[in-house]
Amino acid sequence: MARVDDGLAFMLRFENVARYEDGAVLILDRRIYPAKIEFVRCEDFHAVAKAIGEMVTQSGGPWFAASLGMVSAARTAKGLKAVQAKAFLDEAAYTLTHARPTTSKRMVAYVQTVVDTAWQAMEAGKDPEEAAYAFVMARMEDRYLKSRRIGEHVVSLLPDDVTILTQCFAENLIGYTLLVAQEQGKKVRLYCPETRPYLQGARLTASVAYDQGVPVTVITDNMPGYLLSKKMADVFICAADVISLDGYVVNKIGTYQIALAAHENQVPFYVLGSPSPSNPTIDTVKIEERDPQEVLHAMGVRTAKEGVMGFYPAFDITPPKLVSAVIAAEGIFSPYDLMGTFGKGAVLDE
Amino acid sequence: MARVDDGLAFMLRFENVARYEDGAVLILDRRIYPAKIEFVRCEDFHAVAKAIGEMVTQSGGPWFAASLGMVSAARTAKGLKAVQAKAFLDEAAYTLTHARPTTSKRMVAYVQTVVDTAWQAMEAGKDPEEAAYAFVMARMEDRYLKSRRIGEHVVSLLPDDVTILTQCFAENLIGYTLLVAQEQGKKVRLYCPETRPYLQGARLTASVAYDQGVPVTVITDNMPGYLLSKKMADVFICAADVISLDGYVVNKIGTYQIALAAHENQVPFYVLGSPSPSNPTIDTVKIEERDPQEVLHAMGVRTAKEGVMGFYPAFDITPPKLVSAVIAAEGIFSPYDLMGTFGKGAVLDE
Repeated sequence: MARVDDGLAFMLRFENVARYEDGAVLILDRRIYPAKIEFVRCEDFHAVAKAIGEMVTQSGGPWFAASLGMVSAARTAKGLKAVQAKAFLDEAAYTLTHARPTTSKRMVAYVQTVVDTAWQAMEAGKDPEEAAYAFVMARMEDRYLKSRRIGEHVVSLLPDDVTILTQCFAENLIGYTLLVAQEQGKKVRLYCPETRPYLQGARLTASVAYDQGVPVTVITDNMPGYLLSKKMADVFICAADVISLDGYVVNKIGTYQIALAAHENQVPFYVLGSPSPSNPTIDTVKIEERDPQEVLHAMGVRTAKEGVMGFYPAFDITPPKLVSAVIAAEGIFSPYDLMGTFGKGAVLDE
Repeated sequence: MARVDDGLAFMLRFENVARYEDGAVLILDRRIYPAKIEFVRCEDFHAVAKAIGEMVTQSGGPWFAASLGMVSAARTAKGLKAVQAKAFLDEAAYTLTHARPTTSKRMVAYVQTVVDTAWQAMEAGKDPEEAAYAFVMARMEDRYLKSRRIGEHVVSLLPDDVTILTQCFAENLIGYTLLVAQEQGKKVRLYCPETRPYLQGARLTASVAYDQGVPVTVITDNMPGYLLSKKMADVFICAADVISLDGYVVNKIGTYQIALAAHENQVPFYVLGSPSPSNPTIDTVKIEERDPQEVLHAMGVRTAKEGVMGFYPAFDITPPKLVSAVIAAEGIFSPYDLMGTFGKGAVLDE
């Protein structure tokens, strides 16, 4: 039977993002992929939240892992009385959605739908674990279908022979962009900055492109400006952790300075993803700072002398004036025209 | 006796850049500093050229090492007949100056002065090795004094409480900038991008600042734009491998995109160094590409899957419109006003 993730790279297949096994959630450890293919086994929602906080998975991974963590919580709730079960599910939802600050606001509403599904099943005398699991998997499939539509929109803007510059790891969005371009017979090549300190570009994005047969070249994070000044890329494309309705893009640190260089060199910048109704303005987004030790190490080895400090803002903010278009499942939008379509709260964040 | 390098960090002291010992040149291995303090021992000029090509030292290091390599050649030349000695010195000069392409044009004239000194000594019946060594050491001292003057000029532009953002490793120029600022009672802090793939920022610049008592924070190469957008740095300062007389700055890859972000955020960008009479226009500069394998490794460990490609342009070009001032020993200049002072060929490149 055809699956929505057919044709996508190994790590984008559902079961290789995360999978649910009798109360446990197994999450692909993206921190060490592709050097090692290992899954972190989480026996309960606490372990899932811990894994998310420690960045075992990232990008879309935490949304799926947190949802499966709620399925695990629903399984435990089966053995509790109604009042306790409700409190337990609420506690699990809170824990899972607050593992990382930047996306917590959006994730609360998202995970709440799993809580509601489980709770409604319990009230109806049905199995909350089964109901929650079916709900989560159906939404994963829907999410992939939406990503595919985004891929179709962005590919419609690309020339037949195209070199794409991306940033960090746009997950199934970059997977579908490459896949749809190939399906349409377009010749596509990819440059990806390595994305220090976690090297998501070198490790994840490059692996996805390679798995899907797209020639891919890694550069260090100080090189995108040079590439753009030499017109070596036709377009800059990335996903976003948050697109606020006033057109600001919160994405992996470095996106802003690449966007500046793209703008300076007349290279279009397309941002893929759903604008966030929970963030009508950029000032509602909290930028996460992570452990500075990460910056002072590369592949586990200390780089600087002891006594030298580090600083690790995980995301930056790109203003709408540098964004050529926001590309959502619903279509292609100006960053200055998001409130109309996405401000009605009709679209569920994810 | 006071030395011109008093107060500078360990690795900026003459003998810790490179030293001459009975025909051999010992060069501090900056590739592994500060994790290890090791000197590469070069027994002849071929070994010195090889070490320069392999980036054992960089920034100002190759100029001093190549000069000492010529002293070693002068020692060998003592045992040869005049015609052979001349050919031998010329061969040594060619080999030493062509170890790396980007600076070779400028280095030819520089190293030729050592050849001339040795040759004139031989013709006068004096010891060419001794004459060459005295010449090289005097020029090193002169070079440091010029760097100190540059430091004095740039510090005159800084507020009393200043946070500097730099790029890569500006060697004694950053050393003197920090030292002079401290001597004048200014409160100074430094941010340095780590500078992948060789990590000169994390390893060298941060070590120099730390040795000299300046609080220093390392960031990854995707973070300068964020810092500048948050006004966390008051000024962006770096050296240059080449400043062409039409105001373009060739420096370590990444400088261009930082300069763009500085310009966008109204943060001044000062470039320290001598404009190059050998490069009246930017099109006379060849940009070096290095081994792409470097980009695919971090601290010796492969980052991307096999089959993924790499690309490693070592330098980029920043146009004059992004440069607030060029600061040379002779004073503070507009990037649009270099030809008058430096176009006369009166100033020796280095």
